[in-house]
Amino acid sequence: MFPQVQQSLCGRLIDLEKRVLDHSTEIEHWFRSQWRSHSPPFYGSVDLRNACFKLAPVDTNLFPGGFNNLSESALPVAVQALMVSVETHCPDIARVLLIPENHTRNSFYLANIARLRDLLQQAGLEVRIGSLNPEITEPTEFAGQTNLGDAFNLLVEPLVRQNDRLGLKNFEPCLVLLNNDLSAGVPPILQGLVGQKVFPPLHAGWASRRKSEHFAAYNSVAEEFAQRLQIDPWLINPIFRQCRGLDFQARLGEQALADAVSEVLSKTQLKYKEHGINQQPFVIVKADAGTYGMGIMTVKDPSDVLGLNRKQRNKMAVGKEGLVFSDVIVQEGVHSFETVDQPEGSAVAEPVVYMIDRFVVGGFYRVHVERGPDENLNAPGARFVPLPFEEGCQQPVVGAEPDATPNRLYLYGVVSRLALLAASRELKATHPASQGLSPSLSVLTP
Amino acid sequence: MFPQVQQSLCGRLIDLEKRVLDHSTEIEHWFRSQWRSHSPPFYGSVDLRNACFKLAPVDTNLFPGGFNNLSESALPVAVQALMVSVETHCPDIARVLLIPENHTRNSFYLANIARLRDLLQQAGLEVRIGSLNPEITEPTEFAGQTNLGDAFNLLVEPLVRQNDRLGLKNFEPCLVLLNNDLSAGVPPILQGLVGQKVFPPLHAGWASRRKSEHFAAYNSVAEEFAQRLQIDPWLINPIFRQCRGLDFQARLGEQALADAVSEVLSKTQLKYKEHGINQQPFVIVKADAGTYGMGIMTVKDPSDVLGLNRKQRNKMAVGKEGLVFSDVIVQEGVHSFETVDQPEGSAVAEPVVYMIDRFVVGGFYRVHVERGPDENLNAPGARFVPLPFEEGCQQPVVGAEPDATPNRLYLYGVVSRLALLAASRELKATHPASQGLSPSLSVLTP
Repeated sequence: MFPQVQQSLCGRLIDLEKRVLDHSTEIEHWFRSQWRSHSPPFYGSVDLRNACFKLAPVDTNLFPGGFNNLSESALPVAVQALMVSVETHCPDIARVLLIPENHTRNSFYLANIARLRDLLQQAGLEVRIGSLNPEITEPTEFAGQTNLGDAFNLLVEPLVRQNDRLGLKNFEPCLVLLNNDLSAGVPPILQGLVGQKVFPPLHAGWASRRKSEHFAAYNSVAEEFAQRLQIDPWLINPIFRQCRGLDFQARLGEQALADAVSEVLSKTQLKYKEHGINQQPFVIVKADAGTYGMGIMTVKDPSDVLGLNRKQRNKMAVGKEGLVFSDVIVQEGVHSFETVDQPEGSAVAEPVVYMIDRFVVGGFYRVHVERGPDENLNAPGARFVPLPFEEGCQQPVVGAEPDATPNRLYLYGVVSRLALLAASRELKATHPASQGLSPSLSVLTP
Repeated sequence: MFPQVQQSLCGRLIDLEKRVLDHSTEIEHWFRSQWRSHSPPFYGSVDLRNACFKLAPVDTNLFPGGFNNLSESALPVAVQALMVSVETHCPDIARVLLIPENHTRNSFYLANIARLRDLLQQAGLEVRIGSLNPEITEPTEFAGQTNLGDAFNLLVEPLVRQNDRLGLKNFEPCLVLLNNDLSAGVPPILQGLVGQKVFPPLHAGWASRRKSEHFAAYNSVAEEFAQRLQIDPWLINPIFRQCRGLDFQARLGEQALADAVSEVLSKTQLKYKEHGINQQPFVIVKADAGTYGMGIMTVKDPSDVLGLNRKQRNKMAVGKEGLVFSDVIVQEGVHSFETVDQPEGSAVAEPVVYMIDRFVVGGFYRVHVERGPDENLNAPGARFVPLPFEEGCQQPVVGAEPDATPNRLYLYGVVSRLALLAASRELKATHPASQGLSPSLSVLTP
């Protein structure tokens, strides 16, 4: 069931895999030193794209919502990583308040929250779930079924704010763990908490986070890593440009966007030439603050972004919870030449790697039966077939071929950790205190 | 394949399991605080005995030799635990020198070393193997097969001492990892190393370690734990007495030994009465510094230790590598009422739990088809069927029965961690520096 790659394209990938394997001791040593000076995010997931000639992260989610898609074999590692994370960040805590997204009717998402609750409990924490959703006015029980077929119950309670502390009725947490990405802004009830840790920090939410800042941080991480391995950083890094002040509805900034598209396309074309790659370049235009696969467009020609029709403009302008986008990033498209057999035929697959603290804990494939290798697979309303990794991502096998499954997964884990490290640097750089604002002013509403 | 317990006896065990599950958050919180003040051993394994009315550790091995018996599902957890251990104890290191036991012809043990080498490599360390065995005078390749059927090669090299540093030809390690329990004493080549970490420390070797000191430390750990859980500490702790200055060959000290046996038997009988247990008490007499299941005797009556025949005396007097025992501990015998079906019929099984740093990484059952529930299963020359745990030990399931497999394994993990914590306190108490000797005087030869 492990996805197939197009062998004819894979010369460069095998070179990269070989180089990473040969240097795995040095790579792990470097990661150890990096994590000593950069605190890893509490958790995260990274969407990778494997074009066979390059392998790159295209999205780093700091509020991962697919813990339910991890295979059972990943769970012991996840529990242990949570234990380490708690010891590192907050050894004194015993009680966690988990705040989920508001869409409490989505059964897949509920299964994610149930899984996360169980993992936290198994790591030795008392966990209760409190909702920002104003419709939750009293403790409400939700029932569901995991994709392993196990039934679960979820008790979701209304939040209680008392002075500068957040909790539930009869529950005073030491840690507030957000699984809500704050796309709709940071609600007042979360602002100005004193004496309670909040992970991820509020400024990691999409009310203030920008993909362009993440990928700027990733540029420097990829650069450093590539220098150590003596590889072209482009092999693990998509080119991007930010484009600000757009108004899709009013058609303002279209030409600037087309220029950015043109620039990224021609830089990509140059790289293709340099590496002898016979593919058509494309870019992905996506909202700088977008999530849930919303506000994303595949573009192959600069003129494609001129004269968008109303439907296309609407799609690009408005994201999750009605957030209006005015900034986008134009990112080099990375083909996904991984496919997996589905009942309907061959389907494009992209790896999603899950991390807790500085550890890769597992992952799965996002599989789309109706999309091509140059399209976004995180598409709302479309089918989504999780395909759990059967093996861990931290077990390279020295004697095996560089593209043997454990070695490929190790490479995926390494590149995902590069993105995680970028997120760590990004959060440090965008921390309100680093920007000359006091932490109490850190709260942004859109 | 999970071993069966004798349900009719299990009332108390289920009480204990229930209590541990109900308090798992508090227990994990307590462990977190303990590990902040007590550094965990690098690794360890604990032999448990489940008598259904009590569950206790009977041996704690600080040089575990059965990593090859762990299930494949345990490996990602083991790699991650090694990563954490390295980060905690020696974040700067990149190169490890692994020193195995000298019996390099034992293929099971070679498989253990191969597994350990692979795990360390996967955790991102450069590992080479150096032997204390004087027969290894040049790099020697050993080939073998794991119990999963995979072939392995092991390159074992002669140690090179240069001034105050230990290494191999062209290899300068930062860390010396001992998988050799130093029963034959601490060889000069390991003494007085400067600027290299040695794990476990030399005083953890059997040249100086004493079971009685371990179980004295375990007494206080079990006491504290039992007080928190409001249980009788005896439920997790075997009674013991130390008996020193014996000379089995010369028949000196037999009466003192018989008295100690008598005392432990009658204290056990009292506890059986208190808890309504209808079993015959027995004791295990074992060398205070013994290992490899050598120098062990099951005794049901004090007179059994009077007038031992020559064969019995020899068995008790001499251990691994010819070490002569003069001290023993007389430990309350804990029945093993766990059995597993084997082709020959029902066989007694005892859990062996493996830990790296402060984490339970897996375990297996030691299964013996020719031994009774009141006998030592770690018996040389007899058949031994390791049965890996199929599930992790850190995933209690709140809704499930207290004796459901994941919950029973969680209990095993908790009790094993108590023994690990005892080992940590023991090593601190027996550290030469705590005993008024300078570290350079720490080296004991028998």
